Parts: sequence; C-alpha cells; structure tokens
Amino acid sequence: MTLAQLGAEVIRVDPIGGAADYQRWPLADAGDSIYWAGLNKGKRSMAADMRSPEGQRLVQRLIVDSGILITNVAGRHWHSYEELSAQRPDLIHLEVVGRADGSTGVDYTVNAATGFPLVTGPPGHRGPINHVLPAWDVSCGLYAVLAILAALRRRDTTGQGSRIRLPLDDVALATAANLGFLTEVMVNGTQRPRLGNAIYGQYGQNFTSSDGASFMVVALTNRHFRDLAELTGTAKAVAAVAEALDADFSDEGQRYEHRDVLTGLFAPWFRSRTAEEITAALAASSVLWDRYLSFAEVAHDPRVTANPLFTSVEQPRIGAYLAPGLPMSVDGVHAPAQAAPALGDDTAAVLAERFGMSAQEIAALVGSGTVATGQR
Amino acid sequence: MTLAQLGAEVIRVDPIGGAADYQRWPLADAGDSIYWAGLNKGKRSMAADMRSPEGQRLVQRLIVDSGILITNVAGRHWHSYEELSAQRPDLIHLEVVGRADGSTGVDYTVNAATGFPLVTGPPGHRGPINHVLPAWDVSCGLYAVLAILAALRRRDTTGQGSRIRLPLDDVALATAANLGFLTEVMVNGTQRPRLGNAIYGQYGQNFTSSDGASFMVVALTNRHFRDLAELTGTAKAVAAVAEALDADFSDEGQRYEHRDVLTGLFAPWFRSRTAEEITAALAASSVLWDRYLSFAEVAHDPRVTANPLFTSVEQPRIGAYLAPGLPMSVDGVHAPAQAAPALGDDTAAVLAERFGMSAQEIAALVGSGTVATGQR
Repeated sequence: MTLAQLGAEVIRVDPIGGAADYQRWPLADAGDSIYWAGLNKGKRSMAADMRSPEGQRLVQRLIVDSGILITNVAGRHWHSYEELSAQRPDLIHLEVVGRADGSTGVDYTVNAATGFPLVTGPPGHRGPINHVLPAWDVSCGLYAVLAILAALRRRDTTGQGSRIRLPLDDVALATAANLGFLTEVMVNGTQRPRLGNAIYGQYGQNFTSSDGASFMVVALTNRHFRDLAELTGTAKAVAAVAEALDADFSDEGQRYEHRDVLTGLFAPWFRSRTAEEITAALAASSVLWDRYLSFAEVAHDPRVTANPLFTSVEQPRIGAYLAPGLPMSVDGVHAPAQAAPALGDDTAAVLAERFGMSAQEIAALVGSGTVATGQR
Repeated sequence: MTLAQLGAEVIRVDPIGGAADYQRWPLADAGDSIYWAGLNKGKRSMAADMRSPEGQRLVQRLIVDSGILITNVAGRHWHSYEELSAQRPDLIHLEVVGRADGSTGVDYTVNAATGFPLVTGPPGHRGPINHVLPAWDVSCGLYAVLAILAALRRRDTTGQGSRIRLPLDDVALATAANLGFLTEVMVNGTQRPRLGNAIYGQYGQNFTSSDGASFMVVALTNRHFRDLAELTGTAKAVAAVAEALDADFSDEGQRYEHRDVLTGLFAPWFRSRTAEEITAALAASSVLWDRYLSFAEVAHDPRVTANPLFTSVEQPRIGAYLAPGLPMSVDGVHAPAQAAPALGDDTAAVLAERFGMSAQEIAALVGSGTVATGQR
C-alpha cells in the first residue's frame, strides 16, 4: 500500500474468492471488511486461479512484465526467483517469510518470542501481555518498501535485479537488538524488568487526575524536569530528596533510578486537580505530555479531523470516512487517500492494458475459471 | 542508521559534549551507552558547536555538500529548508517533528494519545498500559528512510529536491487508521474493547503449561483450527459446541466471537502437559505458535546466535557482541553489522575529506571550540 501511496501502480493478485483477509474484522454493517479497505488503499485488484497452470502462467507473465514481485507465499516453484529471473534477469523479487529458517510465523507468535510481552504491563503482573498494535507487521511492511526502493535505485544504476528475503522474525530480532534489549543481556548479563508505564532510563510516568483522566508525562531534559517540579510545586522537595539520597537529578539515569520517589512527589498534584486544570498547566510548560485517549476520542480529535494527513474517502459498500495518506508531506503536500478496490475489480483492465487482451479473450479466461472480475 | 546499513555515508552531527542519548541507558560497566552503540551503527560522528555562527556555517556547508539532511530539530532558521535550498536547490530536507501542528511529542506521549494503551492488557485492568517497544519511533525511522529513498529517486530522475516533513504523531495516527482502529469508530460507531492476549477478529490466545511456560497459539486458517482441535483432542467437543451455539467455526470472525468457550476447551490440554510436550506436539502440527521468551532467552536463542542477520561487532569501550544488520538479505547476503563511532570520532576525517582542510585548519577549529574531535 505504501508503494501505491508513493505513486507506484500496485496490483494485488489474490485467489478467486479472496484470501483470508478479504473478510477480516472489523466489518461494516453490510459485511464488507474495514480491515481490507484500510490496508489496500490505492491498489488494483486482480483475482486468478493460481492452482491452475493457466492461472500461474498468466500471473508469471504479469510479474515478468511488471518487474517487481512482493509475496508472502514462499516455496512455490512457479513464482520462485529462479523460475522468474530466468524470464526477466533484472527482476526485483521480495519474499516475506515468517522466520529465517523458513518456518511459519505471524506477528502475534513472533512477538511472543521477542521478550517484549514479558516486560509489558504492571510490575506485579504475571504472564505475558501482548501488544495490540501488530508492530512487527507494520515494521516489516515498511522494511519491504525501503528494500524495494533501494533495489530499484540499484537497478536504475546498474541494471541488476535483486533477490530479497525478509523474515518477519528478523525484523523483530533486529529491532530488539538495535534498541539494546538483547545487547544488554550479551554485554552486562542483565535484562530489563517489568516497569509498568515507566520509561526505562529516563523519567516518564502516567498520572491520574481527580476526575479519573490519565496523563503520560515525560521529562527528557533537565529543563523538562525542572519545569515538572516547578509546575507541581515540588521543586524544594525534589532538591531535598536529591540531597538526602545523594542523587544528581540532572542525570537522566538517576531520574530513572529514583523514579518511584519522584512519582510519589508529583502524584498528589495530579490527584487533586481536574483533567482540565492539568491540561492547562502542562500546556503552558515545556514538559512533554499527553492525555490518554480512547480510539473513539482519537477518531474525533482535531488531530484527525483537521489534519491534512486525512482526506475523505468514498469507499464503495462501506461509505465515506477520513482515511490517511502517507504520514510525511512532500513540498507541503499530502497526497489524498484513495479507496481500496473490491476483489478482482481491476482484473479486466490489467489484462487489457498490460497484455492488450480483447474483451472476448478476457471473457474466455473468466469462463474457464482462470480469472475472476469484480464490479468495476 | 538504516541508510548507513544500505550503504550510504551517514554523518551524524551532534553538539560538542553530545546530545541526551549519548549517555542513555542501558550502559556498559565502564559507563558507555549500549543504547547509542545500538542506534548509531555504521554512522560517522562529527561534533560541532551549533550555537556559534562558525559552527552553523560549517554544518550548513556540510549539508549543502552532502545534499541530504535529516533532522529532528525544527524551527532553527540556519538549517531551515529556505536557508539551505537557497544554496543547493536540489536539497532533500527531512524534518521529523512531534506533531503536525509543530508541538513537541516523543514516542511515549504520542502513544498515550493513539488509543492503544487503553486496550492493551487484561480485560479487567483499569488504566493505560504503555507499550515497551517504542513502535512509533521505529516506524517513524523507517518512514524517514523510505521518504529519503523516494526523494532520491525523484532527484535522480527530475533533478528536483524535496522538502519532507514527518510528524511522529502522524505516523501513529496513519497506522491506527490504516489498521482499522479509527475507521471502525467512524463507520460503525464502535471501538475495540480490551481483549487481553486474544487477537481481534481471529482465534489466537496464550496458554500455560503444567510447568508454567506460556505459549501463544494462533489459528489463522481452517487448517490451523482443525489441527488445533485435533491436537488437543477436542475435535468432537468443538463440533458439538458449534452445533449447540449454531456457530460456523470455518469463519474466522465466529472463531473470534466464541473465543472464550474455545479457549476453555483447549486450555486443559496445555495445563496438563509440560512445555516440552507442548512444544513437540505444536511443532508437528500446522498450528501457528511460539513460546514466550525473556530477552535473556532470546539473546541466547539460535535464532540470534546462529542467524546470519547477526555478526560479531567489536564495539570500542563496550566489547564484542552479536549485532544485527538489516533484517532483509539481498541476493542471499546480509551485510555485516558495523560498530558505532564515539562522539566526534570522524570530525577531522570529514573536514579533511569533504573540504580538503589541513590538519592545521582543523586544529584551529578545535582550538576555537567550533568543533571537537574524538579518539579515532
């Protein structure tokens, strides 16, 4: 999808009837998948019987013509790099696999084996807490895009194709290692404990207002930290604690080490004020903060409703809603979001445009069950 | 870092003395930052006094010479797009900001306002549960890389530069919307509840063995689901429940709706078996699964220790350990990981190579406090 948002023509090829995600929850009232609509914006859709030799040949021809394949189905000879690069040597072929050893894995199983679920959540909690955001799927998709762009640049320059293999598990492992979670085990023999909502190595904590709202507050720099103490009227108490504990709170590591006593000093100020009062005070300070919001609140927040990142999309069978483009603007412009196709919507157009097939030829392919067309 | 891993020369310019992350936890015994080492692999480091006009002019000259700037410090006129593009019209200028409106934000505050923390963790839990993985920082970094690669391709083709603005908050909002979390609010007026470790819209759940190990198990397809029932000896019971509830478990949405009764059927099999027995049985099935591991277990897992993604890096002052390259292999090859520089390690080399400065000229800049050199 990201490649389509960058301006590429992206043709998603599915089996006739659709893959599992074509009916994936959440669904709109009439049964159409909001999930599919969200993740296929701006793509074209073609449906083909990829178990038949005719279907396989047709899709092969499409890949060879396009010059780039991204697939998460590994181990099929007919769309392997060997088979396809024989027909197009400068092919860019990217295979997303579960694990480096070729075994299967999805975000939620891969995540279990990263270490993160055992340190997520309240310090007293036993057992794993999974993330809700499929962070590895998201990162893997972005790595796939940047791998394709890098390979394209290489092909532009040298004429060479690329065979790229991207294991979802390796995305997770590389990230955990880059961020130090695995390295501290290797170097120091220690691993991070469960910290609740505190941030490791810095001062950051959530607080609750008198009317029950939650706030995340982060003091990344000395200025933030001084302002937080000032704001909560605890500057003198913080200084006294620093002296009593022989601590230097200008060091972010020491702010982290003494986080519980600091939180104990700051919390009463939050507990005795309403969300509105807290918001006004934090907004007037340098402190980094935000109020915890529900998805319903986010969806109606001006950050969504008055943000050029979001444009109204008319999604057939689902309706009009605000959908995002790419998160970055280029030269001040966000390309507007586009609707997702229904399954097979572009089958006929792709066959006509790419291979110059006549309506009769396409009808014959539909008749033989080799392809299926949609409603567009 | 990802750009350096792709083969680019990446020069990180820091204030003399280093930015906050130069001493960020985790630290090795001698006080060097494992965090810095992990996130600056393969970069070059230059230190300059960017509050002085001389330092600003020097860094400007470096940016104009390089042709690409990535910065997360917004609002400084001297390295603004206007100022720099006047000197180099085809400049690629990427600014990471907290929020689209220009206000500040870091991963942990942005995350509070996405909706995710209020649906993470056990259904009965009150209050937010933050992620431990800074997923928005990770995604934002990857978006930055692909934005740069796309802009480079555009410059190669058209000669045009790009002014790119990437708000961390917009990365989070776009992702939440792409995945349907915000869209279901807009379309259906509903939002997702807290589900514990269950996966929304599919059957996935964690189970505990007789010896206390946790497993994440996912049945994404009908085959997975049949195998899970078979494996746990519950095929007949599952069929009986389907009939009694008038449910069709070949539909992933219905498997999700009835997840609690299904989990109730499967759990006794796990509870009465050791982790070893469960591992053997799951490994012999099609079911998607993994055992929850701690960071210490992951760091010593063959997925890390016997994976070409990881190579041994000799990191000055920290020691030798296994560090990852990019998660994708290209033509079967992972580029080996490289050590991170110490602050200012490359100041002298960059000034000599880029501007042909003599040792004397560089010494004068060091003497005036305009730049600082490291130990390399």
